[in-house]
Amino acid sequence: METNGQQRVVIEHVTPEIDGGRFYIKKIIGDTIIVEADIFADGHDILRGRVLYKHGNDTEWAFSEMQLINNDRWTGTFTVQHTGFNFYTVTGWVDHALTWHHGFIKKYEDGQNLAVELLIGANLLEAMLPQASKTDAAAIKRLIKLLRDEKKYTAAVEQALGGEIMDFIHSYPNLENASTYRLELKVYVERFAAGFSTWYSFFPRSAARVEGKHGTFKDCEKLLPRIAEMGFDVLYFPPIHPIGFNFRKGKNNTVNALPGDDGVPYAIGSDAGGHKAVLKDLGTLADFKHLIKKAAEHGLEVALDFAIQCSPDHPYVKEHPKWFKWRPDGTVQYAENPPKKYQDILPVNFENDDWKNLWEELKSILDYWCEQGVRIFRVDNPHTKSFDFWEWCIAEVQKKYPGTIFLSEAFTKPKVMKELAKLGYTQSYTYYVWRTSKYELIEYMTELTQSEMKDYFRPNFWPNTHDINPYPLQSGNEAAFIFRYFMAATLSSNYGIFGPVYELMYHEPYPGKEEYLNSEKYEVRYWDWEKRNKLTDVITRVNAARKANPALQVTNNITFCDIANDNIIAYYKKNKGNHILCVVNIDPYNRQGGYVKVPLYELGLGNNEDFRVFDILTGANYTWRGEWNFIELDPHHMPMHLFRIEI
Amino acid sequence: METNGQQRVVIEHVTPEIDGGRFYIKKIIGDTIIVEADIFADGHDILRGRVLYKHGNDTEWAFSEMQLINNDRWTGTFTVQHTGFNFYTVTGWVDHALTWHHGFIKKYEDGQNLAVELLIGANLLEAMLPQASKTDAAAIKRLIKLLRDEKKYTAAVEQALGGEIMDFIHSYPNLENASTYRLELKVYVERFAAGFSTWYSFFPRSAARVEGKHGTFKDCEKLLPRIAEMGFDVLYFPPIHPIGFNFRKGKNNTVNALPGDDGVPYAIGSDAGGHKAVLKDLGTLADFKHLIKKAAEHGLEVALDFAIQCSPDHPYVKEHPKWFKWRPDGTVQYAENPPKKYQDILPVNFENDDWKNLWEELKSILDYWCEQGVRIFRVDNPHTKSFDFWEWCIAEVQKKYPGTIFLSEAFTKPKVMKELAKLGYTQSYTYYVWRTSKYELIEYMTELTQSEMKDYFRPNFWPNTHDINPYPLQSGNEAAFIFRYFMAATLSSNYGIFGPVYELMYHEPYPGKEEYLNSEKYEVRYWDWEKRNKLTDVITRVNAARKANPALQVTNNITFCDIANDNIIAYYKKNKGNHILCVVNIDPYNRQGGYVKVPLYELGLGNNEDFRVFDILTGANYTWRGEWNFIELDPHHMPMHLFRIEI
Repeated sequence: METNGQQRVVIEHVTPEIDGGRFYIKKIIGDTIIVEADIFADGHDILRGRVLYKHGNDTEWAFSEMQLINNDRWTGTFTVQHTGFNFYTVTGWVDHALTWHHGFIKKYEDGQNLAVELLIGANLLEAMLPQASKTDAAAIKRLIKLLRDEKKYTAAVEQALGGEIMDFIHSYPNLENASTYRLELKVYVERFAAGFSTWYSFFPRSAARVEGKHGTFKDCEKLLPRIAEMGFDVLYFPPIHPIGFNFRKGKNNTVNALPGDDGVPYAIGSDAGGHKAVLKDLGTLADFKHLIKKAAEHGLEVALDFAIQCSPDHPYVKEHPKWFKWRPDGTVQYAENPPKKYQDILPVNFENDDWKNLWEELKSILDYWCEQGVRIFRVDNPHTKSFDFWEWCIAEVQKKYPGTIFLSEAFTKPKVMKELAKLGYTQSYTYYVWRTSKYELIEYMTELTQSEMKDYFRPNFWPNTHDINPYPLQSGNEAAFIFRYFMAATLSSNYGIFGPVYELMYHEPYPGKEEYLNSEKYEVRYWDWEKRNKLTDVITRVNAARKANPALQVTNNITFCDIANDNIIAYYKKNKGNHILCVVNIDPYNRQGGYVKVPLYELGLGNNEDFRVFDILTGANYTWRGEWNFIELDPHHMPMHLFRIEI
Repeated sequence: METNGQQRVVIEHVTPEIDGGRFYIKKIIGDTIIVEADIFADGHDILRGRVLYKHGNDTEWAFSEMQLINNDRWTGTFTVQHTGFNFYTVTGWVDHALTWHHGFIKKYEDGQNLAVELLIGANLLEAMLPQASKTDAAAIKRLIKLLRDEKKYTAAVEQALGGEIMDFIHSYPNLENASTYRLELKVYVERFAAGFSTWYSFFPRSAARVEGKHGTFKDCEKLLPRIAEMGFDVLYFPPIHPIGFNFRKGKNNTVNALPGDDGVPYAIGSDAGGHKAVLKDLGTLADFKHLIKKAAEHGLEVALDFAIQCSPDHPYVKEHPKWFKWRPDGTVQYAENPPKKYQDILPVNFENDDWKNLWEELKSILDYWCEQGVRIFRVDNPHTKSFDFWEWCIAEVQKKYPGTIFLSEAFTKPKVMKELAKLGYTQSYTYYVWRTSKYELIEYMTELTQSEMKDYFRPNFWPNTHDINPYPLQSGNEAAFIFRYFMAATLSSNYGIFGPVYELMYHEPYPGKEEYLNSEKYEVRYWDWEKRNKLTDVITRVNAARKANPALQVTNNITFCDIANDNIIAYYKKNKGNHILCVVNIDPYNRQGGYVKVPLYELGLGNNEDFRVFDILTGANYTWRGEWNFIELDPHHMPMHLFRIEI
């Protein structure tokens, strides 16, 4: 019997809560969190509830009042003002003073004698005195005196019915027997870039301005103005470390490299070093640090690739044989998906009994690059490494280097992708690249933004990656390149492209596969980095619009709008008084039109009011009226509208 | 870092699980529990999972294998063989032997050399030896020798592909790095009557065979044959304790009793005693115990009413003034719902600081009646008493008197009703009495049997109670009495009626209210206990059918059947090879008919097979064929079919 038997309030089903509090939710600094809970007690007394919240090691809880929605469900909010871990929970109590006041009014209306009721009220007021401010205490004492004065019955009743007493009842509740929810829930609050980021990725070895040359960090610096001009803010590189020689792959993933082949950056490690070294052909560590500095001057953060795997030449293989699986013939187990073999890559064996040292060493790689100034990591195939490791590692790195962002490159089963997000990944790649029909896109966005995922899984939409040359783009159709890009950038507040492949609309597939021909994964490529086209223009305008319009800086604020045409998707987003309506023709060949239903209720507009929509991409203005408004989109001209609604 | 970093399996979202394991689920002895869980790991290795389960203080877990459903969701079952608390959880592991075997087959089919694979297999077999039985160990050793014998490559490959090795892989998994779900979940297993009970309630003071006389326990004994003959197995009495005199209510709830008025049994307590005393007019404690014994001989268990409230004369008021709320004028606070006052009833104040003694005393009342042989309690208005008290009290009583059943008489808000069930009530009254249309009935049954409620909330359906004279029955229509009864008895495995009011179809309402005129709550009534009618005949046949047909002994096995008539409800139930189809005309005035869709897939019948349906109520037989079969029901004859489907 450790219970306080005087507590009568039950608090249950608090949301947001992930898996019974096993995981934290994620928010961005300045976000307002809506907390809900079932709050009820035995009997019919009047209850009150509060959200309790605090930051980090604060000893005191702050609170905000909750309101009853209906059916014993309550809601309240709080705003997160500090990054790092914040905590929240819910408290509730039987409010005897409020219950008394409620009964008092009913009895008054029924014409009952209220003499005893006044005395009860006076006692309830008396209990407020210890917590009352000086001014309030004086006023409360005056009230008590009046309520106890038999001769002033009428005045006392009038006061008891009045507003002042209600103010005190609200300000000074008796919390002695308040119940607090059994869990303290966590929210991890992150910097703005965790929720709004615009990624550009390329292979630095393809950055040379002269065909046939191996690109360097110095070459990359020259590209910064172009990338910054287009409005990107994250610059992500595949691995920049020494590449193994043993079992090196050739161009187009051929099994044996020819002399002079540069190998696969993901086959990490050679005599020249492992994950903490820089491939000599790219330059020196100093060059890399200089690039980080220059990028920052252009508003760009450099993101590195963290790929836990080794070439057979990686120093770890000799130094830490326990970290690999050894076969009875004395060779190291390479990666395989029977009957396929990937002999150039050795996976790390997380089940080895030296796992503590392994974990520490892997974390030290991230620490090392953080020390060099990196704060964003794209993690390669995290779903083939131990979950427990990630949970520990991400927490440790973020503790030491607050604001560090991890993007999970897991294209795998739904539950595995969700788990990685729950255990700490800041952002996650998604199935966007394979969601192409209107039905698929709406269903997927609904899952991401309306299910529990909205509280822990931050999508990052990519219309292509260096691993994926999507079938729908392999024809090279310009409109498809434009609208697939546009949807990534406006459906999701975090998105990225693999360039220059994407802007230049390079689309040659490796025959029969969803991969690029002559992929940069296997060779150095030369690109015409000076080229501008319609797509680079669209990218520039869309990224500028994203910066200027808060509605495009969050993902979960989306509402799909009716339009009776399966080739047109329309969606409305709002944030901080900014209203955006996107209308996209996803038929790359034909002009499509229809009436789009504008959510007037969200805009606070009546059915007969005019309002203006301004197309940010073309500068066109339209005056619309009512719910249904006609649009028509020609894919050869511009497959979408990006409207700012002006009200 | 308390983690075992070698564990790679994640186990989440185990069901059934109520509120993160805060509450236990409820089952009946012999029930099979279906457990599901998400089980997955990093990478692509093959996993296995098991349900672990044990009874009470067993130190060892038993287990059953789980199967993958799809999308990382697994399922397994276990059967509860012992009453009391049982425990269950889920374990899962990466099965390296199974993964090896899977890869071995693929490589074999690909024509690869398997020499190294055989050696790996031999090592995996070697790891099984410590746990293998003697016979198996010998066989395993032979296998190891063969797999390591380079000269016997072909024979070894053949063995490695074979069935014997798979048996060993399944029998002797390596569980060293198995993960177990973070919670041990509880199931409370109860005796059969907790899930299948047939209640008859009446006021013992109305049991006299002579008009104008106060009934006694002795009179009740004479009624046992009638009640048992109708097939009831629980006999529930409203409170049998001394009734207060102060503020006693008169007939039909008039404020002041007239001399000779018998008062309300719920105004418990007088100079003659409180909750542990027997009202002298009913007889002695010995008489009551004799009645319990006699009832048992008729297959009837006596259930008492536990109503935590006191008349102003209850001994507690003087002995434990702290347990009540005192008003500033020196009087005790009576029950009220402003502006209404209930001065004959004093509620107990659970917020008093002597709550520990209050809890103990209240529990001692239940202990006392358990000592007298009572094992079933209908609890009056539990929703106006503290939840924590109930959770503690029910657990304590059930610990001391296993098999004790508590029925929650809470007709209140959904979340409060659910909470009482979650914290321990065996059965609960429901909204059945107010669910009358086909849509309402199907929706309500679906909520009870398909939502999480199925695991903790056991409905008990009553077509009337001594507090409720339902509007739809106030006309006295015989068909309505019959089908409302019938649905209670066949939708729910637990049901009850308030008799003899119900069988005799007494229906006079207190004007404008859903209550009985001249209610026995306020006066002694005389009934013609000899009378038989069509309804008593239906009751007898239905209760006999419930005893004979396992499908009617569980509630959650219901499937509603299509029939294109809003006045006909059809439902199918199956259990242990017994198939029941109920078809009810809920129009009390008109003949209704239609084609009912029989769930052939549940019956394992093809579309062109004949099958027979036997109407248990009328003895009629029909040969049906295919999904859709015509029925027609005349409410003046018999408003329902109770078919046993014979296949």
